[in-house]
Amino acid sequence: MHIGLVGLGKMGGNMRARLRDKGIEVTGYDPNPDVTDVPSLAALVEALPSPKVVWVMVPSGKITRDTVANLAPLLKDGDLVIDGGNSKWTDDEVNAKLLAERGTGYLDCGVSGGVWGRENGYGLMVGGAKGHVDLALPVFDALRPEGPREEGFVHAGGVGAGHYSKMVHNGVEYGLMHAYAEGYELLEAKGIITDVPAVFKAWTRGTVVRSWLLDLMVRALEEDPKLDNIRGYAQDSGEGRWTLEQAIENAVPMPVLAAALFARFSSRQEDSPSIKAVAALRNQFGGHAVTSAGPTSGSGSTKD
Amino acid sequence: MHIGLVGLGKMGGNMRARLRDKGIEVTGYDPNPDVTDVPSLAALVEALPSPKVVWVMVPSGKITRDTVANLAPLLKDGDLVIDGGNSKWTDDEVNAKLLAERGTGYLDCGVSGGVWGRENGYGLMVGGAKGHVDLALPVFDALRPEGPREEGFVHAGGVGAGHYSKMVHNGVEYGLMHAYAEGYELLEAKGIITDVPAVFKAWTRGTVVRSWLLDLMVRALEEDPKLDNIRGYAQDSGEGRWTLEQAIENAVPMPVLAAALFARFSSRQEDSPSIKAVAALRNQFGGHAVTSAGPTSGSGSTKD
Amino acid sequence: MHIGLVGLGKMGGNMRARLRDKGIEVTGYDPNPDVTDVPSLAALVEALPSPKVVWVMVPSGKITRDTVANLAPLLKDGDLVIDGGNSKWTDDEVNAKLLAERGTGYLDCGVSGGVWGRENGYGLMVGGAKGHVDLALPVFDALRPEGPREEGFVHAGGVGAGHYSKMVHNGVEYGLMHAYAEGYELLEAKGIITDVPAVFKAWTRGTVVRSWLLDLMVRALEEDPKLDNIRGYAQDSGEGRWTLEQAIENAVPMPVLAAALFARFSSRQEDSPSIKAVAALRNQFGGHAVTSAGPTSGSGSTKD
Amino acid sequence: MHIGLVGLGKMGGNMRARLRDKGIEVTGYDPNPDVTDVPSLAALVEALPSPKVVWVMVPSGKITRDTVANLAPLLKDGDLVIDGGNSKWTDDEVNAKLLAERGTGYLDCGVSGGVWGRENGYGLMVGGAKGHVDLALPVFDALRPEGPREEGFVHAGGVGAGHYSKMVHNGVEYGLMHAYAEGYELLEAKGIITDVPAVFKAWTRGTVVRSWLLDLMVRALEEDPKLDNIRGYAQDSGEGRWTLEQAIENAVPMPVLAAALFARFSSRQEDSPSIKAVAALRNQFGGHAVTSAGPTSGSGSTKD
Repeated sequence: MHIGLVGLGKMGGNMRARLRDKGIEVTGYDPNPDVTDVPSLAALVEALPSPKVVWVMVPSGKITRDTVANLAPLLKDGDLVIDGGNSKWTDDEVNAKLLAERGTGYLDCGVSGGVWGRENGYGLMVGGAKGHVDLALPVFDALRPEGPREEGFVHAGGVGAGHYSKMVHNGVEYGLMHAYAEGYELLEAKGIITDVPAVFKAWTRGTVVRSWLLDLMVRALEEDPKLDNIRGYAQDSGEGRWTLEQAIENAVPMPVLAAALFARFSSRQEDSPSIKAVAALRNQFGGHAVTSAGPTSGSGSTKD
Repeated sequence: MHIGLVGLGKMGGNMRARLRDKGIEVTGYDPNPDVTDVPSLAALVEALPSPKVVWVMVPSGKITRDTVANLAPLLKDGDLVIDGGNSKWTDDEVNAKLLAERGTGYLDCGVSGGVWGRENGYGLMVGGAKGHVDLALPVFDALRPEGPREEGFVHAGGVGAGHYSKMVHNGVEYGLMHAYAEGYELLEAKGIITDVPAVFKAWTRGTVVRSWLLDLMVRALEEDPKLDNIRGYAQDSGEGRWTLEQAIENAVPMPVLAAALFARFSSRQEDSPSIKAVAALRNQFGGHAVTSAGPTSGSGSTKD
Repeated sequence: MHIGLVGLGKMGGNMRARLRDKGIEVTGYDPNPDVTDVPSLAALVEALPSPKVVWVMVPSGKITRDTVANLAPLLKDGDLVIDGGNSKWTDDEVNAKLLAERGTGYLDCGVSGGVWGRENGYGLMVGGAKGHVDLALPVFDALRPEGPREEGFVHAGGVGAGHYSKMVHNGVEYGLMHAYAEGYELLEAKGIITDVPAVFKAWTRGTVVRSWLLDLMVRALEEDPKLDNIRGYAQDSGEGRWTLEQAIENAVPMPVLAAALFARFSSRQEDSPSIKAVAALRNQFGGHAVTSAGPTSGSGSTKD
Repeated sequence: MHIGLVGLGKMGGNMRARLRDKGIEVTGYDPNPDVTDVPSLAALVEALPSPKVVWVMVPSGKITRDTVANLAPLLKDGDLVIDGGNSKWTDDEVNAKLLAERGTGYLDCGVSGGVWGRENGYGLMVGGAKGHVDLALPVFDALRPEGPREEGFVHAGGVGAGHYSKMVHNGVEYGLMHAYAEGYELLEAKGIITDVPAVFKAWTRGTVVRSWLLDLMVRALEEDPKLDNIRGYAQDSGEGRWTLEQAIENAVPMPVLAAALFARFSSRQEDSPSIKAVAALRNQFGGHAVTSAGPTSGSGSTKD
């Protein structure tokens, strides 16, 4: 099989390498001349046998939508575009419709695994028509981890279902990470544990909490046992927000996700406006100076 | 009526003044010679007519317990001690038992109102025996706000019920304050509101959210419209924690209180260990450098 | 002054009555012939002097947007439409643009106060141009509570700022209500409080938590002391959801609002799918039967 | 090596079997005559060579404390008791002190792995003195999973540190389970995923969220794809509560744990008293009947 791959950054580059290792022929295009195989998107399409299959692996949002729009006139009936980026699931219908005008198919494919996927394989969640999935199956099989197909790949539903599954995957991931993080903080705060990294390491076999994220936590603590070199500052990629928006829209309580997301929001604030307001209120009812009468003055405080 | 008042700090001093205004004779004792009426606890007890009623208004915890223990041998059958501080409700049974050995009665009285109580009156929640409540009723009537007694005073139950009610009152207060605080933060963050303090002021009449705390919020914003002089740092007095512990013990979900309390905890941290752990994990699966490939490199990011 | 009022349901009907009491002439239109003053929207507009001011008080969403669209061709330069419903703030720009095509002005006005506003006056939050606000000021003054104008009315900013302020007001309200509700639940659960409604009543004067919502809570408990006639089922009107969506969009942590909203979501579920999943997991690692070995069998349980 | 094992229930029985498989001689005692090796605790101690090592695996709390108290007079200088149950870490100091009076050592050992530990080995977290750990090391090595010792075993600190680590482990577990559960609920609610169990299965390889709990979730969904046979009702074992209490005591924000725990509390309520209170409040300000005026009546609702 021979496919086109648009986007050869960290993820796209790794995927090209894995695909080639697994015997898939790949023509890659990237604006960066150091990594690209062809000089243009048109040249990439040109290079492919029909039916042409193009995997798009560029930043989600406008860039992905523009890439699909640029591919549309270059492709025709029976060809197929796969968006493997972290696109919002609502983009998929737009992309699919645009391509369908010329009979070109569309699949959305959520991809998990990060930089480790090159070696371990990527978890894949795909949305779209069965015929399109069948056409690209050799590609999916090359990218996914070894083992039974259904343990690293799913055809989750129609167009959008792949990115939706990936979005929820990431929402779950927010909660998982924060659960470990809270445990870490309490173990460090309490001070009766001699060696907190050793406790995390001991959790990696036999326990109920063992996981790949736990393995990564152990790895992080081996590199930096007190996390001294890391600031308590965390971005969010958008998918946590989208998941929470979906929770609201579908009246699904997701307090764990909300807590994890809000903690990231807070981590990026210089100071908390909410807590400024709380402090202002405490000041108002407790007296203008902060009241803290000690025992020698025998005074009761106004600790409402 | 003539009572003794131990503790003449900000709260005790205000209460003495209000009681005297209302025609209650008060002999006050405080270690601070500038404010005390008598040189010692013994002299205070000595000065009172029988049955002697002593109101204790000192910091909760050890100081209150010690004060009660010091009063116990000075009092006898038919006398009464009232703890008006923010004691933990579990202290009340201990205090009551100690005093009961010599026939002295005990009431616990939760007091709300802060520095404003001097003028407005204090909300009072009392626990103990009916006979003891009746004995002290003139004192409660002098301290509570004007209006119907039941709108500023309650005999909530047996020993401990007064402080328990006050504890829950404060737990509720945490949630109320944080609710306003969140609204404040969003209004400021959005940037389409010309004058956020004016919005809060407009909420003080007619709306569903009008309250005394809102009035205080307006006052705070009039003094400092952007809260520039206030750091986002909030202590907690203990009663919020006790309320949450009670929620746990009684299997009562209290997510609003928990959120408000945790936000205060966070406000006192230099950096969040939890978020350091989250950032470490993100680093591990996304690659060692923070990956953020731009459009010109056409690379997909690893935004798991 | 003479205005038109579209929508004479519970809110609109009350507002017409209050406006008339305050000396504002009102021509009202409603599809319900029992309450309407004129047979059609056109007749309503016809009846008004120029510049014509029409207050729209119909359900938010499509009905409000349609009403504005129907009014647009009937009005002209210098006339004014005010949307007093609970519209989403993003609708306002659409409405304003449509009306501006013929030079008609637009104000969005968030209205708080519920059924009590008829007597107490309504809290008003207005967005739009200053000239339009000035034109309608007599109407706002008639609707708002007596007292200083700025304590029940605010011109919060440009078009949309009124409904945005009202949206946040309602978001705050969710948190306030749930804070009281949690306190209620704990007081009832603990069982040491003799008379929980009496504790709430005692909070209404002097305390830090006193508020109008607390007064309503007391009223509810006087009618039904154990809330026996009320199911634990709460709708949400949409504004809490919009506020939380805005929190997400603006990266503002609002855990109190989220908790209050999620509790309502949960209240409407027959059974919790999340907890089904948790129970399934516990079953899996603890053994197929629920394990609960008693002391006589001396067995340790698998309480991971 | 030859040890005594008190408690042969599900966990103790499995551990005896695993220990014997690994070449450790075990004499077990249980009140249940069908499973016990000896007729009494005294006989069990009698049967052991010195220094005697007794592993206690009975329900935590009073039963464990009583068992240790009953063992104390039967043991002497150099002997060792290991509590492998889910005891609260504060019990450990009490147990250790009691045994130390006669020179008997004490280790607390948190054990994770549930019914799967028989085959996979158990994750072990141990607190106590190094000499005591060394004495019992062959037992720990037999119980823990195969692989490097530090990946399934930790000497976490002094007495109490083992159970403390296990407590936090379980607190983390609450959050992990609920994170998956929320994702499950949203995927099911949305309705665009053809086969939700297949999505979970596809997450088990390559993805960031892969874990042992996820494997169990897949197993549960294979047995019951819609979880039709499971009620949304979840107990909590105590360790989640203790962890949250520790969070409060140490001023550590743990919103994820709190959310997971509160969701279990809610799941056990017939009806939510909090939401009854919210519904009562909504009723009060919106009018006595639930107001929901439709479009034909043109009425605005009172959706504060």
